[in-house]
Amino acid sequence: MSNINYSHHQESSSDHETRGKTITCKAAVVWGPGEPFSVEEIQVDPPKQMEVRIKILYTSICHTDLSAWKGENESQRVYPRILGHEAVGVIESVGEGVEDMREGDYVVPVFNGECGQCVYCKSDETNLCERYRVNPLKCVMLADSKTRFWTQNGPRPIFHFLNTSTFTEFTVLDSACVVKIDSDSPLKKVTLLSCGVSTGLGAAWNTANVQPGSTVAIFGLGAVGLAVAEGARSRGASRIIGVDINPDKFIKGKAMGITDFINPNDVDSVSEKIMKMIKGGVQYSFECAGKLSVLREAFLSTHDGWGLTVILGIHATPEMMPFHPMELFQGRRIIGSVFGDFKPKTQLPLLARQCLQGVVNLDGFITHELPFSQINEAFQLLVDGKSLRCLLQL
Amino acid sequence: MSNINYSHHQESSSDHETRGKTITCKAAVVWGPGEPFSVEEIQVDPPKQMEVRIKILYTSICHTDLSAWKGENESQRVYPRILGHEAVGVIESVGEGVEDMREGDYVVPVFNGECGQCVYCKSDETNLCERYRVNPLKCVMLADSKTRFWTQNGPRPIFHFLNTSTFTEFTVLDSACVVKIDSDSPLKKVTLLSCGVSTGLGAAWNTANVQPGSTVAIFGLGAVGLAVAEGARSRGASRIIGVDINPDKFIKGKAMGITDFINPNDVDSVSEKIMKMIKGGVQYSFECAGKLSVLREAFLSTHDGWGLTVILGIHATPEMMPFHPMELFQGRRIIGSVFGDFKPKTQLPLLARQCLQGVVNLDGFITHELPFSQINEAFQLLVDGKSLRCLLQL
Ligand SMILES: [Zn+2]
Ligand SMILES: [Zn+2]
Ligand SMILES: [Zn+2]
Ligand SMILES: [Zn+2]
Repeated sequence: MSNINYSHHQESSSDHETRGKTITCKAAVVWGPGEPFSVEEIQVDPPKQMEVRIKILYTSICHTDLSAWKGENESQRVYPRILGHEAVGVIESVGEGVEDMREGDYVVPVFNGECGQCVYCKSDETNLCERYRVNPLKCVMLADSKTRFWTQNGPRPIFHFLNTSTFTEFTVLDSACVVKIDSDSPLKKVTLLSCGVSTGLGAAWNTANVQPGSTVAIFGLGAVGLAVAEGARSRGASRIIGVDINPDKFIKGKAMGITDFINPNDVDSVSEKIMKMIKGGVQYSFECAGKLSVLREAFLSTHDGWGLTVILGIHATPEMMPFHPMELFQGRRIIGSVFGDFKPKTQLPLLARQCLQGVVNLDGFITHELPFSQINEAFQLLVDGKSLRCLLQL
Repeated sequence: MSNINYSHHQESSSDHETRGKTITCKAAVVWGPGEPFSVEEIQVDPPKQMEVRIKILYTSICHTDLSAWKGENESQRVYPRILGHEAVGVIESVGEGVEDMREGDYVVPVFNGECGQCVYCKSDETNLCERYRVNPLKCVMLADSKTRFWTQNGPRPIFHFLNTSTFTEFTVLDSACVVKIDSDSPLKKVTLLSCGVSTGLGAAWNTANVQPGSTVAIFGLGAVGLAVAEGARSRGASRIIGVDINPDKFIKGKAMGITDFINPNDVDSVSEKIMKMIKGGVQYSFECAGKLSVLREAFLSTHDGWGLTVILGIHATPEMMPFHPMELFQGRRIIGSVFGDFKPKTQLPLLARQCLQGVVNLDGFITHELPFSQINEAFQLLVDGKSLRCLLQL
């Protein structure tokens, strides 16, 4: 293997010198649960058939990265591993058979891919691709069950994460998990569309289909919850109630359209408080906290007869849902939403354009920016609830 | 009070002699959990404002009566009580303010009423009326929190059941819980529309909106489950899988459109068996058994991405639903259905006409007929799984 060193002073990502060759570059590797990221040199294989290799320009951190970093579930404890799934980048090279993208294209990686060919991709009813849907257990490439990342010395395989692995200067993805965007897209903001913001906007637009004049409650005001608010605001919801134990989120939320705030620590029962504010309850509630007790409150906050609760939060607990079957006979519905029910390759390019046109306002989601080398500081900001999204520049 | 005795040789139900007066008639009274029905003379008050008094012509027995008779839940243990909620009758007299029905009209009592005025009745999204929705705890009339039934000697109040109480020659209902039908309706069959058959047909038509060529699994082949089958058949479903531990139900089911049968005792896992029969699973599953383990199998039998499970069974258990929140992220949905999502007063008259026209075939649901005095024998037939519906003639 002839290795090209990209880790210093590399400017052009479409440098023909690297095509077909292993690239040596910097990546933030996790070696054990909760251990600090080790920013070290790794080797990145060329893309195989229907894969692409991307130079990451910006990446940000989401709670799913946090959960995997901590190794909260046993299934997540796969090391060494490169985490990260929110990013924007430029294609360095494409593998055999890739025809919808080429070197130099700007792209967004997506953890929930779209092959375009399977029975699911051909259905209007789901955005879960047969082969490339989100899969927290997957840690190798589908084509050969091997990794494309290797330690510099060894070499030892470094595992992939969530179809993406973006905490690295170069990464290899299945082309089904890469969305081409217009070259004039606002790159920093587009990073947000890789996960959290698309998830929240789409939950309001696609999953719930929030109607003008309707009422909404959002439980958990992280980036996903605030994106739900922005989605509901852009649809003309009349009341958007934000629920969070961190009062700092309330200030932020106002800009995203939140009209009322509830701090669960200030009331006996959030759902009863909401029933008092909006007779009968809200039409839509969104659970973005990943807690069962919160999920139950979100459910009880909706109007009987037609209320809809959308689950967005990741529930790590082994416990079952806190509802009695008969409670569904009150006409309240509950549904899960993955990636905001967007089909990524089909629909994300339009969403990126809508962001540029101001249909949705993504100002305020990026609260911090740091160089990639300071990834550990960036994680701490999220752990401490100080950042919505901290953008890392590579 | 001047009491008119209706219990013997009374033919005309619109006899003007009885209007405004207490009627003495026969009813089947339950005096304690599981105790044999006592067919005895009772007194029935005249209807108050917005109520109607009905002479019952036919009534039948449903599992909800069985459950209340056994007193499975503490809340059901209200005695003495008149059970029964599936029936057809003729109006004897109407209370003040009732304008949509009059003496001599043929009617079907419904346990899930429709006032037509409330925010729920005015919404297209629910059939749960604010005041007259199904309420298993209710045992008195809404107007004055009193009963209209009294023991002959005492007199002591006899409690109402499920907005209806049809195991009596005469009953009093809120007009919101009474549906007028055409006088040429087939009365025996129309009795079925009072509960089980409407519930099953509507679950297929309204709640699930079964599409032509689609695939269906039905768990529990009582009258409700078989009505789901008939509803799915009439919609052109291509495969209708019936699941029941009683193989006798399989013969019956064929006439209602069931194409495949699974006896859970013959297989390790019903959902795995269904996955083998229909790649990926069925589009719709219906849980009509009221068991949590069955509900889970019904859920797992549906296709990920778009599968819909409709809960119809009454779950008496205090246990919560056997699903992890993350399981909803596979795109399977689960929803409850009450009275098949029919708005009774608005939609049942059309359904009765559709039965007459043969859009749906209700032959086969009435398996037995007995005189009202043999109500205890009729209950035993249902307990033993020998009857689908046993019609009692009054
Ligand atoms: Zn994420
Ligand atoms: Zn696909
Ligand atoms: Zn019933
Ligand atoms: Zn109403």
